[in-house]
Amino acid sequence: MNLHDNPLLHQQPSALNLGIADFNASLTAAGATVSQIDWRPPGDADPAKAWALAQLQADPRIAAANATACQRVIAARPIWQDVALRADGVWPELRDTRLLLHAGPPVQWLEMCGPMQGALVGAVLYEDWADTPEQAQRMLAGGEIAFGQCHDFGAVGPMTGIISASMPVLQVRDATHGNLAYTNINEGIGRCLRFGANGPDVLQRLKWLAAVVAPVLQAAARSALDSHGGIDLKAIQSQALLMGDEVHSRNAASTALFLGQLAVALTAPAARDRVPADAVHQTLDFIARNSQFFLNYSMVSCKAIMDAAHGVPFSTVVTATARNGSETGLRVSGLGPQWFCAPSAMPVGLFFPGYGQADACPDIGDSAITETAGFGGCAFAASPALTLLAGGTVGDALRYSREMWEICVTRNPGLSLPALDFAGAPCGIDVLKVIDTGIQPVVTTGIAHRQAGIGQIGAGIVRVPMACYQRAFDAAAAAFLPT
Amino acid sequence: MNLHDNPLLHQQPSALNLGIADFNASLTAAGATVSQIDWRPPGDADPAKAWALAQLQADPRIAAANATACQRVIAARPIWQDVALRADGVWPELRDTRLLLHAGPPVQWLEMCGPMQGALVGAVLYEDWADTPEQAQRMLAGGEIAFGQCHDFGAVGPMTGIISASMPVLQVRDATHGNLAYTNINEGIGRCLRFGANGPDVLQRLKWLAAVVAPVLQAAARSALDSHGGIDLKAIQSQALLMGDEVHSRNAASTALFLGQLAVALTAPAARDRVPADAVHQTLDFIARNSQFFLNYSMVSCKAIMDAAHGVPFSTVVTATARNGSETGLRVSGLGPQWFCAPSAMPVGLFFPGYGQADACPDIGDSAITETAGFGGCAFAASPALTLLAGGTVGDALRYSREMWEICVTRNPGLSLPALDFAGAPCGIDVLKVIDTGIQPVVTTGIAHRQAGIGQIGAGIVRVPMACYQRAFDAAAAAFLPT
Repeated sequence: MNLHDNPLLHQQPSALNLGIADFNASLTAAGATVSQIDWRPPGDADPAKAWALAQLQADPRIAAANATACQRVIAARPIWQDVALRADGVWPELRDTRLLLHAGPPVQWLEMCGPMQGALVGAVLYEDWADTPEQAQRMLAGGEIAFGQCHDFGAVGPMTGIISASMPVLQVRDATHGNLAYTNINEGIGRCLRFGANGPDVLQRLKWLAAVVAPVLQAAARSALDSHGGIDLKAIQSQALLMGDEVHSRNAASTALFLGQLAVALTAPAARDRVPADAVHQTLDFIARNSQFFLNYSMVSCKAIMDAAHGVPFSTVVTATARNGSETGLRVSGLGPQWFCAPSAMPVGLFFPGYGQADACPDIGDSAITETAGFGGCAFAASPALTLLAGGTVGDALRYSREMWEICVTRNPGLSLPALDFAGAPCGIDVLKVIDTGIQPVVTTGIAHRQAGIGQIGAGIVRVPMACYQRAFDAAAAAFLPT
Repeated sequence: MNLHDNPLLHQQPSALNLGIADFNASLTAAGATVSQIDWRPPGDADPAKAWALAQLQADPRIAAANATACQRVIAARPIWQDVALRADGVWPELRDTRLLLHAGPPVQWLEMCGPMQGALVGAVLYEDWADTPEQAQRMLAGGEIAFGQCHDFGAVGPMTGIISASMPVLQVRDATHGNLAYTNINEGIGRCLRFGANGPDVLQRLKWLAAVVAPVLQAAARSALDSHGGIDLKAIQSQALLMGDEVHSRNAASTALFLGQLAVALTAPAARDRVPADAVHQTLDFIARNSQFFLNYSMVSCKAIMDAAHGVPFSTVVTATARNGSETGLRVSGLGPQWFCAPSAMPVGLFFPGYGQADACPDIGDSAITETAGFGGCAFAASPALTLLAGGTVGDALRYSREMWEICVTRNPGLSLPALDFAGAPCGIDVLKVIDTGIQPVVTTGIAHRQAGIGQIGAGIVRVPMACYQRAFDAAAAAFLPT
């Protein structure tokens, strides 16, 4: 066959274009088929940034530190130890001052989103610091109430994440590294304080959780601790990944597994008669009807895991992702307690009847600690059924986990993703890899109404803002590169 | 471009060959690439059979009957109603004569596989009809004990499926059609009567199940029936498909969901104090440690469902698939109580350490009722995690469900397969479609040791023998075609 016979000469040209899409116009005008590859040079075309990234990625201290941080994540073994019937029993600050804990990085009253303000009003009423919502609001706006961040107290709270003095808190201990973590008790679905609702029904259920459910949970935790060293939360999370949960937005399997262990612990001789039989029944019945009950356990498990990985010098692994409804913030293992913040993105998903995207509050809650530990969006491939709640297809679910592999240090051999042939879930989101690839971490999340007092209106996904990562990257460069 | 320039002329020939592979030799000798398509003409190249198949497939009475049978499957609502503390309370025949029920179609002592003989010896000892295994074996071989089939008593039993006079049985009612179905209580994993083990440990656990667990389950069933109309087994099966179970060989999610409902029912005021607190704890603890506990519930649910679909005149839908370790038999909706039998196939899968394929017993148990109702092999796509136990890949799991769609009448809108974009599970295995396509139904199954007294040695998959379907087809042709 001579050159003229080459069939390629008879074909129309086709091209791949990397980067700037404007080059495509001239090619398509010439009759070519163009496939656009969405690519940006590392460092956003800023040569200084690209050079800093290259230096940081070549730094053996950072590679070693990130491996250490991930080893700590993989080795962590969070055990549910106890329930404190009042938060101020754990943190005297909550008794000594009028202090309320909330989700996410710091935020002032005027900058707070509707649900956060609504939940704080509810907490002031719950604590009997005010008689009416209006009075509560005046106190909050007038500086009579101090605000703290859950994370600064070793705690996490879903959505608004409010913890006040007289609320019970769950206590978890990482048996490997010894650190403690805390969270509140899940209120159920629908109108909840965590979604910014604060009506009498919401406050009444919170009182019931404190008076009836918390003592039952306390008896169960202590019974399990005595009989077999306590309920192993990561073991439940790991099994649940084989059972359709990603243990952030879907917790059906983990709640069922947890409920079984709870029932065994509560009927054991050591626990029996410690709490009224009717309280036991009410508690089990409440959990059996609330497939999100395990969410708070999943979060506090992840908080214990990621606190164990925090503070490794030179590590660029993210150890907390938290949102207050206005801003999203990151903490990084080797960069101390500082939050790297940017305005929260808007979750996209499916809405309850009567609500839509325009009603949504920006991304909110400490629950993205689950993604930080390799669950949630990182483990979306484990949870095809979550697409029924959050939208998208089963193919999207697989794709999200594959994307997250690209920005993580390693894979967690203890957390299998069945649909991806049991490969380990992404482990250790690396600031450097996020900057290098431009891939923003995916978070699966509930969606609150943007106004105070309404509650949950849907569920979906959201991406962590790139600006958080850019700030964390700049801090890493300033801290770890020679000046 | 003239004809001579056509690049196809410069290529080597490639061919698709349908059917007889012998034709390939001459093509490959000529340098061709041949892709063999595994195809057989309907009716196995028997023109009379092909014509009979065409007539049956064109018969509107059969199409309508199969639609009716599937509607009954889809509409069935099996509710766990009660526990009979003794089987002879349900079936007086078991009290009046020395009669033992077993899985599968009829089989005589000498034709029985090792595990079936072992389990029958165990049952004779359990009933105190003999003092030693040797004496029990002599009685069984000597005709002193009669055998019945579980299915003839409206019951199903896993593996050997033995039910004897003093064993407790679970009772389920299809709330839509009113029919009742029964099964025994799951013994756990490892050395069990159902796998042919019969040592003192096995018999002791059976006594404990009857004395301790059965009354607790009875109290739970009655409590749930009083409070909310009873535990809906198909609702649990349906949820479990979203949670990694196919509810035949994997029952982790369904057992967890069931355990939660059990705990709620047992702590309700109506049930409390009806049974000793320690028995409740022992029962819950046993179930929490036995992820196969729900298997028997899944089976009896499917038995209730498929009995509702049995007896539709002209229907060629399979309503029972059962194996006794020697033979596998089918029942067909429109063909009465007759079994269509053929020698059991050998399951292929993964074995416990120290055992291998040569140790396996041929396919055994009534549990293939789950496939018949659209679970198990039909729903394998729902259970990637089952491949960890039974072998194969996640791709195989998807392929099995797709294959089963080809031989089923329709898809069940109440049973979603998440990994196949939530499409309905295969519903109504049709004898005509099996004959037409040559696809044998896939069954997920436990594997027993071929010798009596040992127990489970693995898990895997097996195909229902085509000869069963050929016999059922011949019977359908004889019954439904003009002579």
